Amino acid sequence: MPLYDLIIVGAGPAGMTAAIYAARADLTVLMLDKLAPGGQLINTNEIQNYTGFDNINGAELAMKMFEHTQTYERITFDYRTVVAVRDKGPLLKEVVCEEDGAVFEGKTVLIATGTRHRVLDAPGEDRFSGNGISWCAVCDGEQMRGKDCVVVGGGNSAVEESLFLADIAKSLTIVTMLGLTADPMVCDRLRQKENVKIYVYQDVLGFEGETKLTGVRVRNNENDKDPRFGPADTVDEKLMGEHVIPCDGVFEFIGLIPTTEFCQDLGILDRGYVTVDAHMRTGVPGVFAAGDVIVKFLRQSITACSDGAIAGQEAAHYIQAHEI
Amino acid sequence: MPLYDLIIVGAGPAGMTAAIYAARADLTVLMLDKLAPGGQLINTNEIQNYTGFDNINGAELAMKMFEHTQTYERITFDYRTVVAVRDKGPLLKEVVCEEDGAVFEGKTVLIATGTRHRVLDAPGEDRFSGNGISWCAVCDGEQMRGKDCVVVGGGNSAVEESLFLADIAKSLTIVTMLGLTADPMVCDRLRQKENVKIYVYQDVLGFEGETKLTGVRVRNNENDKDPRFGPADTVDEKLMGEHVIPCDGVFEFIGLIPTTEFCQDLGILDRGYVTVDAHMRTGVPGVFAAGDVIVKFLRQSITACSDGAIAGQEAAHYIQAHEI
Repeated sequence: MPLYDLIIVGAGPAGMTAAIYAARADLTVLMLDKLAPGGQLINTNEIQNYTGFDNINGAELAMKMFEHTQTYERITFDYRTVVAVRDKGPLLKEVVCEEDGAVFEGKTVLIATGTRHRVLDAPGEDRFSGNGISWCAVCDGEQMRGKDCVVVGGGNSAVEESLFLADIAKSLTIVTMLGLTADPMVCDRLRQKENVKIYVYQDVLGFEGETKLTGVRVRNNENDKDPRFGPADTVDEKLMGEHVIPCDGVFEFIGLIPTTEFCQDLGILDRGYVTVDAHMRTGVPGVFAAGDVIVKFLRQSITACSDGAIAGQEAAHYIQAHEI
Repeated sequence: MPLYDLIIVGAGPAGMTAAIYAARADLTVLMLDKLAPGGQLINTNEIQNYTGFDNINGAELAMKMFEHTQTYERITFDYRTVVAVRDKGPLLKEVVCEEDGAVFEGKTVLIATGTRHRVLDAPGEDRFSGNGISWCAVCDGEQMRGKDCVVVGGGNSAVEESLFLADIAKSLTIVTMLGLTADPMVCDRLRQKENVKIYVYQDVLGFEGETKLTGVRVRNNENDKDPRFGPADTVDEKLMGEHVIPCDGVFEFIGLIPTTEFCQDLGILDRGYVTVDAHMRTGVPGVFAAGDVIVKFLRQSITACSDGAIAGQEAAHYIQAHEI
């Protein structure tokens, strides 16, 4: 069994860029993903903010990136679900896979498994995912210009992204399970927008439309009457009963889940995300992390690629420094 | 005269990506450069590590990036040489241009002027610049695979890049004006490489070749006899007289010069580079910086784009927070 210089877990923009930089520094690279390469790109209809491509389908950009990695013979890709990473010393890490309990050995490991968006699991969500329903205002907000938009969620990211979207969309309706729980200042700023409606204590029952999303079905959930959720919020509107809110697009901001279950034992996580320094080094020597999976504040393809470039380069430096 | 939301000084990958992100956040953007958009890309023959383009001419990638910015009506580009940036308050900055002393006003400013490589100013250098002579091992090293390569310089970056290049090239010859001044450990590591020759106390007289670079002409400069440069280094070879070292490519690592003369009065520089936090904020509220011009350790197109994305986004946040 070969000892790879670098094993990359996750073949999104961060992992693929790390592979390219590592291969160019003469490292042998094994890149693993349980799904097709591309990460979250695959779920994005149009990418308009990856510099150099003014408008490209997410899956197409993912394919271009993967083909780029495949111009290097030193990069091997395999479909694998990684269940554990074990630190066996400065230049030996084990990557354990679900499939047949296969174990790969690498001098270094890069964690680039990204995050997955928490989803509502409501009827119609699968059908309009990436085609009407989005999880990224920066990515897809532009497509809401002059249109009617619904945001699901009431936390900081929901409210901040709503402020962003409200300046683009014709109308924005925010529906949330509880009251708005974001910082009061940003909540107030959102309330002042003339084209914004806020309906609190709503459950999303499902998404309406045939080939195109046309609305969101919501129903008052009476959470305001549940003492666990504090006193009823009287500032925002509590739309009673069941309604369909007509719209052209929905953004769900109900949380992200970092995919780090497999590396919980390494002691490198902070609330599920991997903490790294500016060189993308984790607390375990020889283990790096890059992309959406790390603690950071702008999760974009281009920022993930940058992390990956740094991590690939640093893995080469690390091996060089330890192989004297 | 319009008050722009964001004025970007420098239209390289960082500036152009910032423009895209800012425009998508609904900001009006004025992007200035004294040269054609693209920054250092323009001087690079082949780019093989900008994820998604496995091999693209630098000028072509620059053009794609610029065309990308021009899909946004809110982004205006102008050929201007900026000579000063003045802070007139939280939401008013003045950008002064050489041409007719024109002054543009912006709520925020982004410094994205990058660096320029120090050059030797030796005969033939212009002719082979970007086509035989490179200033970036990570960018162009791959093209040296199995070839003969010369590195000019003896400081940390010259020696570190030589270590990288030595693993790719068939042979590597490092020529330097003094002795090797890099950290002793990395110098020793370089000396141990079988395919590396080190010639100290050499002046580069010029570059040889007709349409293709074929060699570098050097001559012993006797700096080792000058007491200002300390005792003669006896470890490395002192090739006497004048010689042509045959090679397929030359890398010059004799220093970078950040283009920050125009913002010296803002008090945001550290040895010529702009210091920023992780949000690309400088010490002056409303003034951001991104790309090669900032204090950082991996200067690449993809990392510059990432900085730009963050800066563009942060400029929007900054304006939003100050316009309550």
